[in-house]
Amino acid sequence: MNMLVDGEWRTDAYETTGDDGSFERQETPFRDWIRDDPDADFQPEAGRYHLYVSYACPWAHRTLVARALLGLEDIISVSVVDPYRGDDGWQFTPGKDGCTRDHIRDADYLRELYVEADPNATCRVTVPVLWDTEQETIVNNESKEIMRMFSTAFGDLTTHDVNLYPERYREEIDRILEAIYEPINNGVYRAGFATDQAPYDAAIDDLFEALEHWDDVLADQRYLAGDRLTEADVAMFTTLVRFDTVYHTHFMCNVQYIREYEHLWPYLRDLYQTPGIAETVNMAHIKEHYYTTHPSVNPHRIVARGPDLAFDAPHDRDDLPGGPPSALAPSSADD
Amino acid sequence: MNMLVDGEWRTDAYETTGDDGSFERQETPFRDWIRDDPDADFQPEAGRYHLYVSYACPWAHRTLVARALLGLEDIISVSVVDPYRGDDGWQFTPGKDGCTRDHIRDADYLRELYVEADPNATCRVTVPVLWDTEQETIVNNESKEIMRMFSTAFGDLTTHDVNLYPERYREEIDRILEAIYEPINNGVYRAGFATDQAPYDAAIDDLFEALEHWDDVLADQRYLAGDRLTEADVAMFTTLVRFDTVYHTHFMCNVQYIREYEHLWPYLRDLYQTPGIAETVNMAHIKEHYYTTHPSVNPHRIVARGPDLAFDAPHDRDDLPGGPPSALAPSSADD
Repeated sequence: MNMLVDGEWRTDAYETTGDDGSFERQETPFRDWIRDDPDADFQPEAGRYHLYVSYACPWAHRTLVARALLGLEDIISVSVVDPYRGDDGWQFTPGKDGCTRDHIRDADYLRELYVEADPNATCRVTVPVLWDTEQETIVNNESKEIMRMFSTAFGDLTTHDVNLYPERYREEIDRILEAIYEPINNGVYRAGFATDQAPYDAAIDDLFEALEHWDDVLADQRYLAGDRLTEADVAMFTTLVRFDTVYHTHFMCNVQYIREYEHLWPYLRDLYQTPGIAETVNMAHIKEHYYTTHPSVNPHRIVARGPDLAFDAPHDRDDLPGGPPSALAPSSADD
Repeated sequence: MNMLVDGEWRTDAYETTGDDGSFERQETPFRDWIRDDPDADFQPEAGRYHLYVSYACPWAHRTLVARALLGLEDIISVSVVDPYRGDDGWQFTPGKDGCTRDHIRDADYLRELYVEADPNATCRVTVPVLWDTEQETIVNNESKEIMRMFSTAFGDLTTHDVNLYPERYREEIDRILEAIYEPINNGVYRAGFATDQAPYDAAIDDLFEALEHWDDVLADQRYLAGDRLTEADVAMFTTLVRFDTVYHTHFMCNVQYIREYEHLWPYLRDLYQTPGIAETVNMAHIKEHYYTTHPSVNPHRIVARGPDLAFDAPHDRDDLPGGPPSALAPSSADD
C-alpha cells in the first residue's frame, strides 16, 4: 500500500485487502470540525479554507457538488490534483488539462500537506482534504463530514438559498447515507478490489440488490429523501455518474448499466442537469484515473471506451413532487 | 507464449503481440481437407473423424453448431477439454462438469495429439481439432474450414436436410465471413489482448462500426446472407453469444451490450432458439475460461457476474422472409 508511516512515504503495496481477499477501506484520520461558535478552533470564514480534490474521486466529488449547490465557490477555494495516481500518490501537475497547482503551499505531492499537518502521520493520503490556511493544518479529510460542514456551518456565507441537510429530513438523510454507503458507494470498490471470488460475489449481490431497491424508491419520488434534493442525492450521484463508464467494466460491476434502470437513469440525468452539477463532472479525469491507476486490476492501463451517456437527455421527472431548490432553477440566461 | 516448438512444449510467454502492442493471431498449421473423392486422403465416413473442442472457444463452437444443425452427432464424435487453460495448455479433466476424457487417445493434454500428428510441430495448440482415427493424425484445426467440410463434404451422412453453404449464396457467405472476421470475430480479441491504447482504440472503432452496420442489415432480413441460415450466421453467433457476458467486460468492449441493439439482440435470440443450437452453448465453461485463463487481463481471475440474458425471450423475427430450415422446425414434442 502507498501510505505515510510516521511521516515517511511507503510504497510497499497497493491497496488493503482482508485475509479472505476482500477490500477493507481504512478510516480517515483528520476529523476536526468547522463550527459557527466563538470558542471553536475552526470557524466559518470566507477565504480561510481550501479544498483539495481530484475530479476522479467520488468522495472528493461530493464536496465539489455541495460547494457548487450551496454557492460556496468564492468562499472556499480549490486545488485539483492529477487524475493519475502513481507510486508517489496524488500529485500536482499544473500544466495538465483540468489540473491546478497547489494554490496554498505549492507542493508537488498531496502527501506534503499531510506531513505539514502532522509530521508523524500514519495514514493513506486521500482526497478530499479541507485545509485551514490560518492554522496551516488539515481540518478534515472525510468527504461526508466536509459535505456536512458545507451544508450546515457556513450559514450566511452560502450564496444560494439551498439547504442540503434541512431539519425535518435529517433523520432520513442520515439513514440513507448509511444505507447506500456499504452496498453502493463502497460496494463498487469492494467488487473491484476483491482478490478472491467470494468477496466479489458478495459485493455484487449487495450492490445490485441495493440499486434495485433505490430504483423502486425513485419510481414515486424525485429524490432519495423525498421531494427535496439533499446530501443523500449528492452521495448517490457521484457513484452513479461513474458507474457505466468505470465501475461497470473496470470493477466488473457488470450485471446492468445504470442507463438500463427505469428510474435511476432519469434520476441521474435529473441531478446532472441541476444547475452547477454538470460543471463538477470531469469524465476525462474519471476515466484516466481508474483505468491507469490500478494495474492490479487493469495491467495494461488501457482506458476502456465505455458507452456514450446522454446525461443531457430529458429526464421527465418534473411531474414528481418537488424539484431543485428555486435558487437553482434554470437561470434567465437560458431564456 | 504457450506453444509447441519442434514438438517441445514451451511456456515462455502468454500471447502474441505486435511491436505496437496489437494482438496478432497466428495461422493454424493443419489444413487438410475431407473430400467425397475416391482419390482423396480423407474421405467422408461415419465414425472415422473425431472433433476436439472447448465449449468456451468461439472458433470451436462454430464446428459444434454446424455439427448440430446438420445432424452429424452420430457421424462425428466429440471430446471436450477443460475450460481452464493453464500453463500446460488445453487439458482433459474428465470428472469436471461438461468436460470429457479424450475418447480417442486418452491423452492428458491436447498438445499430445498435436505431437502425435507431427512430432516436430511448431505451433499454438488450439481448438477445434478434427482428428482422423484411421490415419491417426489431425486433418484440420481451422474452424472455418472444419465448418465448411461439415457443410459440404458429408453429403448423405448429414441427417438433417440442411444446407449451410447453398450454391446461390456462396459468394455472399464468403464475403460476409471475410467481412465479419477482422472487426468482430477477431476484433474482440484485438481489443482484449491489446497492450497499448492505440491498437485497443482501433479495434473498438472497427468492432462497433461493424456491429452497427450488421444491426442495420438485420433490420430487413432474418439472416446475414438473406432469408437463409448459413455458415455466416454460425460464425456471427458464436461471437455474439459470448459478447455481453465476456467480451463486453473482460475484453473492455464496453460501448454497448448486444442486448441493447435493436436487431442484433433479437437476431441472436432467434439463432439461439433454432433447434440444436442452445445445447451447444455452455455459459459456465465460457465464463470460467475467459475470466480465469487470462491473468494478463484479469489478474485475480475473478469471474465477473455479467448480465442475465433472456436468450429464450420471444424474438419476433418470424415476420421477416425466410426462417430456419424446415428440418429444424420446432419438433412435435413442443405441440
